[in-house]
Amino acid sequence: MDIIVLKPGTKKDHIRKIEKKLKTFGLGANVVIKGTERTIIGVKGDTSVVLPEQEDSIRAMEGVEEVMRILKPFKLASREFKHANSTFSVRGNKIGGKKIQVIAGPCAVEGREIVLDIAKHVKRGGASFIRGGAFKPRTSPYSFQGMGEEGLRILKEAREKTGLPVVTELMDPRDMDVIQKYADIIQIGARNMQNFKLLLEVGLSKKPVVLKRGLCATIKEWLMAAEYIMSNGNEKVILCERGIRTFETATRNTLDLSAVPVLKSQTHLPVMVDPSHGVGYAHLVIPMAKAAVAAGADGLLVEVHTNPQEAFSDGEQSLPPVDFKRMMKELKPIAAAVGRTI
Amino acid sequence: MDIIVLKPGTKKDHIRKIEKKLKTFGLGANVVIKGTERTIIGVKGDTSVVLPEQEDSIRAMEGVEEVMRILKPFKLASREFKHANSTFSVRGNKIGGKKIQVIAGPCAVEGREIVLDIAKHVKRGGASFIRGGAFKPRTSPYSFQGMGEEGLRILKEAREKTGLPVVTELMDPRDMDVIQKYADIIQIGARNMQNFKLLLEVGLSKKPVVLKRGLCATIKEWLMAAEYIMSNGNEKVILCERGIRTFETATRNTLDLSAVPVLKSQTHLPVMVDPSHGVGYAHLVIPMAKAAVAAGADGLLVEVHTNPQEAFSDGEQSLPPVDFKRMMKELKPIAAAVGRTI
Amino acid sequence: MDIIVLKPGTKKDHIRKIEKKLKTFGLGANVVIKGTERTIIGVKGDTSVVLPEQEDSIRAMEGVEEVMRILKPFKLASREFKHANSTFSVRGNKIGGKKIQVIAGPCAVEGREIVLDIAKHVKRGGASFIRGGAFKPRTSPYSFQGMGEEGLRILKEAREKTGLPVVTELMDPRDMDVIQKYADIIQIGARNMQNFKLLLEVGLSKKPVVLKRGLCATIKEWLMAAEYIMSNGNEKVILCERGIRTFETATRNTLDLSAVPVLKSQTHLPVMVDPSHGVGYAHLVIPMAKAAVAAGADGLLVEVHTNPQEAFSDGEQSLPPVDFKRMMKELKPIAAAVGRTI
Amino acid sequence: MDIIVLKPGTKKDHIRKIEKKLKTFGLGANVVIKGTERTIIGVKGDTSVVLPEQEDSIRAMEGVEEVMRILKPFKLASREFKHANSTFSVRGNKIGGKKIQVIAGPCAVEGREIVLDIAKHVKRGGASFIRGGAFKPRTSPYSFQGMGEEGLRILKEAREKTGLPVVTELMDPRDMDVIQKYADIIQIGARNMQNFKLLLEVGLSKKPVVLKRGLCATIKEWLMAAEYIMSNGNEKVILCERGIRTFETATRNTLDLSAVPVLKSQTHLPVMVDPSHGVGYAHLVIPMAKAAVAAGADGLLVEVHTNPQEAFSDGEQSLPPVDFKRMMKELKPIAAAVGRTI
Repeated sequence: MDIIVLKPGTKKDHIRKIEKKLKTFGLGANVVIKGTERTIIGVKGDTSVVLPEQEDSIRAMEGVEEVMRILKPFKLASREFKHANSTFSVRGNKIGGKKIQVIAGPCAVEGREIVLDIAKHVKRGGASFIRGGAFKPRTSPYSFQGMGEEGLRILKEAREKTGLPVVTELMDPRDMDVIQKYADIIQIGARNMQNFKLLLEVGLSKKPVVLKRGLCATIKEWLMAAEYIMSNGNEKVILCERGIRTFETATRNTLDLSAVPVLKSQTHLPVMVDPSHGVGYAHLVIPMAKAAVAAGADGLLVEVHTNPQEAFSDGEQSLPPVDFKRMMKELKPIAAAVGRTI
Repeated sequence: MDIIVLKPGTKKDHIRKIEKKLKTFGLGANVVIKGTERTIIGVKGDTSVVLPEQEDSIRAMEGVEEVMRILKPFKLASREFKHANSTFSVRGNKIGGKKIQVIAGPCAVEGREIVLDIAKHVKRGGASFIRGGAFKPRTSPYSFQGMGEEGLRILKEAREKTGLPVVTELMDPRDMDVIQKYADIIQIGARNMQNFKLLLEVGLSKKPVVLKRGLCATIKEWLMAAEYIMSNGNEKVILCERGIRTFETATRNTLDLSAVPVLKSQTHLPVMVDPSHGVGYAHLVIPMAKAAVAAGADGLLVEVHTNPQEAFSDGEQSLPPVDFKRMMKELKPIAAAVGRTI
Repeated sequence: MDIIVLKPGTKKDHIRKIEKKLKTFGLGANVVIKGTERTIIGVKGDTSVVLPEQEDSIRAMEGVEEVMRILKPFKLASREFKHANSTFSVRGNKIGGKKIQVIAGPCAVEGREIVLDIAKHVKRGGASFIRGGAFKPRTSPYSFQGMGEEGLRILKEAREKTGLPVVTELMDPRDMDVIQKYADIIQIGARNMQNFKLLLEVGLSKKPVVLKRGLCATIKEWLMAAEYIMSNGNEKVILCERGIRTFETATRNTLDLSAVPVLKSQTHLPVMVDPSHGVGYAHLVIPMAKAAVAAGADGLLVEVHTNPQEAFSDGEQSLPPVDFKRMMKELKPIAAAVGRTI
Repeated sequence: MDIIVLKPGTKKDHIRKIEKKLKTFGLGANVVIKGTERTIIGVKGDTSVVLPEQEDSIRAMEGVEEVMRILKPFKLASREFKHANSTFSVRGNKIGGKKIQVIAGPCAVEGREIVLDIAKHVKRGGASFIRGGAFKPRTSPYSFQGMGEEGLRILKEAREKTGLPVVTELMDPRDMDVIQKYADIIQIGARNMQNFKLLLEVGLSKKPVVLKRGLCATIKEWLMAAEYIMSNGNEKVILCERGIRTFETATRNTLDLSAVPVLKSQTHLPVMVDPSHGVGYAHLVIPMAKAAVAAGADGLLVEVHTNPQEAFSDGEQSLPPVDFKRMMKELKPIAAAVGRTI
């Protein structure tokens, strides 16, 4: 809220009221352009502390046509606030560093044998983390809703067997304690990106958080959601692009890879890409994983399943281990071409 | 999952595997078209019980090009399941009947005096319900987050003074008890439309639920969210269109009024419209409220504030009481024109 | 281009270069805010003459973070330039006045008998104009492409028989002469809204132009397209909302009725709505036509066909005459409720 | 139109009418599933010849709930029709082969000196084609509209001096002759992707056509547009992804790189990517060019300008020669990683 544009013909009296209101926020006003068609007020002082609702209240005042904000509405997450890339170590794996980190595994934890088997395969293929959902957000109430704590225990066993740290999703603030007990990284899913209560909850955790982009969230709103977590004390936020909703139906979502360089210029936080949800079909995952690495991503989230047609969910977008292995191999020269390892 | 289209050249062996899998779901297969270019399998039996994940597992099988679902993935919410319009009575106010119900009030409960004053005004103007948020979902962590239980007590007092039942939003499953204590209708906000844990929670309540459409939710997904609530035992769901996210920025969202007749043909549940969030600017609210009534809406949610430029949120889209009163008056002949009262 | 925001740390030298460049456009600069975080330049002089490419060239200069435009990029079309509503008379029918004008007819001219029959029916039902395409934009090259001049002659005969003026689409600048010979109003279709050569061409005509909104055009771009026509000399532009493309697939497009009051506040030009293309299904047309009138539309474009299942195109969205007649009857009290006739 | 789903309770009489109608198209009907809830008709015969309007007419018949098409609505462009990748040679440069082809140059031809200078630079940097617009589609009628034939003569001179073939845009069918005289490849811009008259016109040419994706065109519609050109005799179509319109405003458009592998599986035509228009800001162009190559693109279109802040248009997204050179160098190892050269 740094520039206030007035409607043509706004009276002095109204301008005075606006100035008075700005004063209550600790700000000054400065009529900077008094054109034939528009009068513009510049706002003096530290406008970064102005809250959205204060901005809105100015917008609702008589005579105000538009309020323009120059400064970004997030601070802790911004590249200006902290210039150097943030990196976090999770059981010895550095996220945000030179090495591109790969999180792989099934969509849902479906059973002990199968998860241990998949974990073994993704470890061999070169993944650094195992993923799997114990609590599942499902669009149908009649679908499999996850194994709960038993699923988390299986993921823990997979970590013990393979050494891969565990990434799993939190859906309900009431599950925070049990998730904390097993997870190395907590995932916030796309549908919960603006579940502000959940964001505040993981803000109290010491574990890194993978924050997936909402289906129709702008990059600005996404960074505001990261700010929610950071403002509560947890600065270890990893952003994960997973596709946005558009009119195109040839892919499940539209993977917005330009978000990677945009984020790199606006924030110091690590940026990952989930090509599996982004495209929704296994045969498109490998080309998009390559593109993500070429665009500068710090990591990948990939769904892998030993038997996609038996998967409880997302079978059509899961890679079998043989394809995962091939993908990892083919990513190496691309990572090298952008000065990274994988 | 009633039609399975095979890729050209799919072998008999693969078709047999698909048939075998269908059998495990209790379904039969019927090769119905064996064209020169495509073979199509029709699925026999009650396919309405097939879960999305079972559908996906077929989709992931070798030889399968496409799986088409004929039946809708929701049941309790569908017009086919229950033909007559559903109506619910809330303290004597019938929702879904001939009378168009109007829910009005401030975005957030900001204080006792102001809410009581607004309640008095909207009552006089002709509203049947008072709305106000005690727990606020805010995109910035630095914004006013609501008055909590104190806010709910104020709403209760407003109900005692005016007789208007209270509509307020639930954001966190842990607040369920306190919300139940004060609310007459529980609101699920747009950002929580697919917060499945919250949906299951209000499914256990006996209070009607206003389910707002998610910013990028299709009508099908919205009805699936209603199904979540209904499948848990609460059939009193009111759908509320509040605008979807599109490329257009002249309005805050794009109010999809065609959702009203579409829903009316697909579901028996009452349909409301929130023009305030739909457009985001007070001067557009009245024409869109008129359009909503003309399109067949069963009710309206309108933000009203006695002093929009002092509102803690959404000031620019709130109507002052004088405009609310005018709106109610101008809506009367339109309601009459579509055979309703207001 | 009235506000230029500089990047943090921009040197005096770069500011001087920006000032120099502004001078070449005949404008002055005024450093208005020299904050701790940003420096903002206000531009003095008549910035309405600054072309988009000049604006872009400033944007590309070193040190420039953002360029903000206060004034709207269209002039002749704007409500500020001309305050009173524009109205045009076409063979005695006033568009933009108190009477809501209805343009009805088949999607395409398919034959003499059928068009004369439809014309007779829509006349009886209360339409003021007959529409029909002689040159058809079709997404498939193998589809019926229209009857050409023969189709235009049929429309002319329909006018002679019923007195209804003719609305028909121009697709190719080379057809301008033949279209001029028969049409009373020239339609520019949604897919040609930014076919600038065609816009310039109809700008030379003396006939009113119905300019349909592009599938993914913002209201601002739409008004810029109107400006194209007006800047070439033809001020008789009628804007027609016909649905935009969104993620929702339950309707063919998403009819953006909020465009009606938005346009009414920004432009003096008449605004029509085409509910047939907007929703794509006949059973949704009547409720949306009512909503359009309630929202303040100056007219409607409705597809009518005596035998929808034999229509060469758009059969599923065409109303049979009996429904058209009912629609016109049911629109009367709604028109009256908003102070109009139909 | 291979599957027709009937509404519940559809009478035999209506089914017979549908069968009769199918017969007039030379097709047979086969009631394949007679479920408790739905009856489904399978259509026998060569349904690939069924036109969209015939499909629509079935959809409009009484009793029909849905019509599903199995076969794709394009043929000549499909991978099934022609399995091997199409390649075209333009003055010795093979498009669609192992070498990734780069088309570079200014947005508009602004003058002789500058274009010759840019051509020299892009040649040195490694481009194979020079691009530049002589007729410019501009959203404002007051903007620079291009130099016309004089611009084309300059491009020809650039070709003579550098050997680079010329790519330039056709906007008006009346300019076809003059464009043919100078261009080696004709570009159809995004805003004209469904300008069907223009598509038919270039279908008569012997020159390859770069067909840019429309701002809100689905991949299917884009391939239908290619089919328009091919059905008129010109099979040399190059598809160019340049970003689609979404709700995100951090980039000018959302570059849909997943379109590259999707197209590669559906069509034999070469696929290029224009990262300049896709993102709109120079600093994002290089990462997205890398991502495009990694995703499998056959070529790139890149805007290059020796003096971006003096460019007549698109200055903010143009690369200066030094960055173009660096991009070309950095693309080499990525091209190699996907088995290509550049």
